[in-house]
Formats: sequence, structure tokens, C-alpha cells
Amino acid sequence: MKHVIGAKCTLCGKTVSAEPETTVCPSCGGILDIEYDYDYIKSVNEKEPLSEIKDRTMWRYMRYLPVQSTGSRPRLRVGGSPLYRADALSRTLGVKELFIKDDGQNPTASLKDRASAMAVVKAEEAGKETIACSSTGNAASSLAGNAAAAGLSTCIFVPARAPKGKVAQLMMFGARVFLVDGSYEDTFRISAEAIDHFGWYNRNAAINPYLMEGKKTVSLEIAEQFGFKDLPDYVAVSVGDGCTIGGVFKGFKDLYETGVIDRIPRIISVQASGCCPINTAAAAGTMEWTPQEENTLADSIAVGVPRNPIKALRAIRDSNGITVNVSDDEILAAMRLLGSTSGVFAEPAGAAATAGIKKAVETGLIEKDARIVSIVTGNGLKDVNNAIRASGEPIHIRPDMDDLLPHFN
Amino acid sequence: MKHVIGAKCTLCGKTVSAEPETTVCPSCGGILDIEYDYDYIKSVNEKEPLSEIKDRTMWRYMRYLPVQSTGSRPRLRVGGSPLYRADALSRTLGVKELFIKDDGQNPTASLKDRASAMAVVKAEEAGKETIACSSTGNAASSLAGNAAAAGLSTCIFVPARAPKGKVAQLMMFGARVFLVDGSYEDTFRISAEAIDHFGWYNRNAAINPYLMEGKKTVSLEIAEQFGFKDLPDYVAVSVGDGCTIGGVFKGFKDLYETGVIDRIPRIISVQASGCCPINTAAAAGTMEWTPQEENTLADSIAVGVPRNPIKALRAIRDSNGITVNVSDDEILAAMRLLGSTSGVFAEPAGAAATAGIKKAVETGLIEKDARIVSIVTGNGLKDVNNAIRASGEPIHIRPDMDDLLPHFN
Repeated sequence: MKHVIGAKCTLCGKTVSAEPETTVCPSCGGILDIEYDYDYIKSVNEKEPLSEIKDRTMWRYMRYLPVQSTGSRPRLRVGGSPLYRADALSRTLGVKELFIKDDGQNPTASLKDRASAMAVVKAEEAGKETIACSSTGNAASSLAGNAAAAGLSTCIFVPARAPKGKVAQLMMFGARVFLVDGSYEDTFRISAEAIDHFGWYNRNAAINPYLMEGKKTVSLEIAEQFGFKDLPDYVAVSVGDGCTIGGVFKGFKDLYETGVIDRIPRIISVQASGCCPINTAAAAGTMEWTPQEENTLADSIAVGVPRNPIKALRAIRDSNGITVNVSDDEILAAMRLLGSTSGVFAEPAGAAATAGIKKAVETGLIEKDARIVSIVTGNGLKDVNNAIRASGEPIHIRPDMDDLLPHFN
Repeated sequence: MKHVIGAKCTLCGKTVSAEPETTVCPSCGGILDIEYDYDYIKSVNEKEPLSEIKDRTMWRYMRYLPVQSTGSRPRLRVGGSPLYRADALSRTLGVKELFIKDDGQNPTASLKDRASAMAVVKAEEAGKETIACSSTGNAASSLAGNAAAAGLSTCIFVPARAPKGKVAQLMMFGARVFLVDGSYEDTFRISAEAIDHFGWYNRNAAINPYLMEGKKTVSLEIAEQFGFKDLPDYVAVSVGDGCTIGGVFKGFKDLYETGVIDRIPRIISVQASGCCPINTAAAAGTMEWTPQEENTLADSIAVGVPRNPIKALRAIRDSNGITVNVSDDEILAAMRLLGSTSGVFAEPAGAAATAGIKKAVETGLIEKDARIVSIVTGNGLKDVNNAIRASGEPIHIRPDMDDLLPHFN
């Protein structure tokens, strides 16, 4: 691949060759980051501008992705999610311009489809027939769905607290699912041991450097949906493991380095107050983070021991970003707000970014005349129990006008 | 609107003017059908072929829709859902070519978004601020979501048996939800009385002739995804109220009448064995149907008293269609099949069409060298309880290799 230089370690800085099964740094065990030949990508952009590409999926950005082709297997339609101008919500929050990037519109209803679609292509490159991962849910179901479409097998390790809807979804995709009696950390460890033992393809986002490359397509799309100009001042995203925010930054960085955009939006890193190791470190201005309990109903970002803290902390630092922690009540309120003002139904982690924007505006952390994008990372149908908690109960009536009319007095 | 002639009664044949609030025939109470000036649409097609339209949503087919514009309010991205070539599934079923039209990829995760998006535009035309409907779920949540995006209020009447996930979804969109202690029939009646009483805009699909026009865009898309040629021999769709199958037929008919396609695919009408009044009448070759009990877990098509039997029965007759009834077990098996072979997670009613195709192939009702499209009308996340029933339980383990390894012996 002419446009890929290699995989550079985020710890020791060593660069290794980027092979399909490349995981962590062979020297120090650090997480790797794919490096591109930006001059080469620039020359490709000059020959064929992005705007002329017909493909509407994430693969329209192939020249920015660490693949030569998407392989021969069938695949789901990932990416190309809508960016909504949310005037009613921006009025409610008291900011000038707010946009919602609804990544819950992906095939298995979360942003993680972008990473899993990449994993499937890489597994095929590596000649593997089984892909495995540990996940709080969305990585798992997106892997199961994208692998099923491609005819690959999956083994998935899920912590026992994962919502039933998420588990059912991945079971329906034919995955072998192991519900692990333990924390996310325990689940991750057993999956790593099993992957080692059986030689499966590894879709654990922090270990596998390609997955963040898939995720970054959300930023490539946002930038293109703004016409690559007048970019938002801020992009808010919820943060768990650290891979998604790393991808959000990387996408903008790649466009910036290739001269397609003239600045990188500031990233608003939103975590749950009950589980915010990355934001705690970032706010203290250090790269040293401390494990935390996982006390939040937003299961997709309940990660007390983040696997990708370095990329996350650098994304915040290098984008001149800000951090906001939000309570579970603030998350539930943001779910109602997104739904009722914009018709977007988000799962708790998906609404957290909006809760963070609300809080950042209220506390004066971001200016009222800002232009902001809130990334909705997952669909609310994934977590019905919390949707019920957020929404309250409907009104019960008998089929009779006498029963109905009093509700309108 | 130059391209709309009027609304023609399906019973007495009288044509009335198509106004935003036009409902049933003023003479006989029959359901109306929007009529187009096909010659005019042909002339528009000649001036600007459909392929040149940039809009990727259902509104790209504006010239075939009973609207002049989509109004000034914000809207969700409805339509443009993927058509997947499903080779693994076609091999499993033993048919030559099978395609999946995944309409669970719409904003609120069902085909009904196409109808609700239309209702919102029509309500705005009519100057109404509140829209109401009765629904087993998907019509309701799609209305709530699309109306919320546009800043309109909704009052929604839902039978008490509707799955909690569907109710939670529409509550999150800020709808006023009335859970009616009774059947779909009771729910429909009380909604009609309330709409009359309060003067709300009526989104009940059978009463409002515009909704089917929104739904028909699924067929316009299917035809375009085949390049308007080499169309499928069959299109399978699950049938409840009768409006969706009516829309599926109407879309192909409009394209046929305007010379864009050279034949109309045969429609496979799939109902649940426990609730199949339309198929029972169609199979007997009569337009006279009899109410039935609602004995199926596929709640979206559990309609014992269909509101739009005439359009449904005509769609089957006029497309030289066929009917198949499937058991709940066959529906659950089709959910597993769709998920594991194709990465598409369908709700029971969404998988029913695939169950119908399987049965029709096995019984020799359709030939093995056929080219078939199965429409998935709704996402499986809408009905987690049935997904769990279909999928079985995951494997519980402690975070320990000794606990894991025996599962691979």
C-alpha cells in the first residue's frame, strides 16, 4: 500500500511494518498508530477529488484507510450516516449552531460498525476464518453482524452486565457468545488469552490498530458534510475505552495534514461522572491515569480501565479539547432532549455527548456563538431498559372517550 | 400539483380533489387511492432522468409523490435503505438469486418511516400542529420521531400488548402515548374518535391515502437499485393492515405506467398462520375477507381486522402474486437465518417475508431459478423479547480458560 508508511508505537516511537495481524509494539508492548504518506494521499486527492467518489459508505475514503481493497466478501452498508442541523435543540441549549451526527443509523446501530467493518476486511487479508473480541456490547454486535454478512465466524466475550438487547442482537448474528462473570477488565483478559490460544483474528480495539482507522471515517464524513470548510468549532463525543475519541481526532488530523481542511475542531471529551479516568487525567494535565469504578448506566462507556488512554489523552491535548463529566440523570435528560427536539433516539452513551454540550454551555466552558457537532454513537433501541427509565410510563386508558378526555384538561 | 389528478375511491370509483386532509370517499366511505398524470411524469422523466437526482432519500422520487415540496421544517433521513445481495442465504434456501431490502435501516428502524415522513409534510400543508394515530408500534414510533424532528406534536394510541421497546422509543420522541386496554380494533376506534374530537392530523394509514404513497418509495428504490431492468421475479413482504403491500405494488405500478420498467414483479404476500385474513381471502379468490384472531408473536402484522384489505387484495391479484402463511416458529427460524447468513437483524414481522420465501421454495410454489427480493420491514432491536426467544441463551463462564476450553471440545 503506497499510502501507508507503517505502524508507529505510541509509547517508544518505533515504527513497524503494518501487516494484517499487526497488534501491539514488538519492542515495548505499546499501542500502535497507523502512519500515512500524506504527500501521496495529497497527490491522489489532486487526481480525483473526494467529491467525485460515488461510494456513499465509509469506503469512499479508501485512500485514507489502511487497506488496498475491501476484499471479495459481501459487506453491510457502513457509514454515510446523516448529519442533522438541530435548530430546536440548539435553541434549547442556547448555542448558535448545533448538529447531530447520528451514527446510530449504522447497520447494527452504532458507530462501532465502522471499526468492525475494518476488522472483517483485515481478517480476510490475514486469511482468518474466526474473529474474536471482548466488548461491553456494541463492538460485539457490530463484529457479529459484519462478520456474518462476510461469512466469517465470531467468538465474543461480553461482561455479564451487558443489556439483554445487545446480547440478543449478537446471538441472532450467529456468534458464539460467552457471558463472563466479571468486570470489563476480566472479560478483556480472558478474550486475549483465548485469542492467543486459538489463533483467532483479534478485534479488540486497543490491541488492533486498524479499528481506530475505521472509526475515524466518522470525522471524514463530518468534514465532508460541511463541505470541508466552515468546520465546527467543537465536536463532542462520549469516551469509554478511548478508541473512538482517538479515531475522531485522527480523521480530522489526516484531513488537516493533507490540506483538505484548515483546522481541527476542538474535541469535547464526555465521560460519565461515575467512571471518568481519562477526563480526570486530562483535566489534571497528565498522561497518568488511575483506574476507576464503573458506576454509570451508560454501559458502552463504563470502562474503569481504559485500553487506549494514550490516544484519547493526546486527542484531547492535541485538539486543544475540553473535558466534561455528566451524571446519569444528565444523560437520561439528554436522551429525552435529543428525542423530543430532533427525533433522534440515542442509547445512554450516545446521548452523553449532548449532555456534555449542555453542561459545557451552562458552565460557560464553551461560548454561546459556537458551532458544535454532537456525535450520537449508538441507537436507543439497544438499551430499552434505560430508555424506559428515561421516558417514564405511558398513560393507560380503556378504549373510551370518557377515559381519554380528562387527560386533556 | 400538475402530476396529481386526484384521489379515486377504491369502492365506488369516484374521484375527488386531493387535499392535505383528504381521507375517505365522501360518497361511500371507501378508501381513496391517489391518481397521477402518468404522461406528465413521463415528460418530467424525459427532461431529468431519475439517475441525475442528487437527493438520496425517499424524496428523490418527488415527481411520483403527492407533494409539491417537502415543506420548510427539518426532517429525518428517510429511505435510501440498502439492498443486499444475499448469496449465502440464497444457497441455504436453494434459490438462484435472493436480495434483502433492509428497511430496518430507516431513522426509527422500520419501513413505516416512509409513511410518517409523508404524514408530517401533509400535516404541515394542512396547517396542523398535532398528528395522531393508532398503531401496533412502528407506525407510532416513526410518526413520533419524524414529527419530533419537524417540531410537531403527536398523540399516539397503542394497544396494551405492544412491546415495551417500541413504546419506550416513542415516549423518548416526546409523544403523548395512550396505552389502550383492548385490541388493535379498539385502539383504532378510540384514535379515530379523538382525532375527530380534537381536529388533529390523521396518520391512520388506511384512512389517510397519502401514507401508502410514502411507503411505495420502497419499490421505487428497489427498482432503481436494479437499474430499472432485470427486475426481480418476486418481491416478498409481510402483511398486516394491508397498506404496506398496497404501497409495494403501487410503486412498481407507477414505474410501469410511466414506462420506466417493463414488468411488475409478482408480490409474495406473507402473513402469520395465526392471523391471515387477507391471505385467506386471496387464496379463495375473493375480495370478501373474514376477521380473525390475532395469534402471532409478530406484533407488527397481528391485525385481525385489516383496515386496507382492498388495496392488499388487489396488489396480490394485479401482480399475479402468491400467498404464504408462516408459523411463529418459522418466523423465529427466519430471524436466525437472516442474522447468521446476512448480518441483518429483523423483528419478527420483518423476517416473516424471508420465512415465506423459504416455505414457498420448499413447497414448490416458486421456482428455484427465481430472482427474489425479501423486504425486511423492521429492525430486530424493536422487539428484544422475541429476539431472545429466537436466539437462545449465551454461554455463561467465569473469567478463566479452564471454564472456557470445555466449550470447544
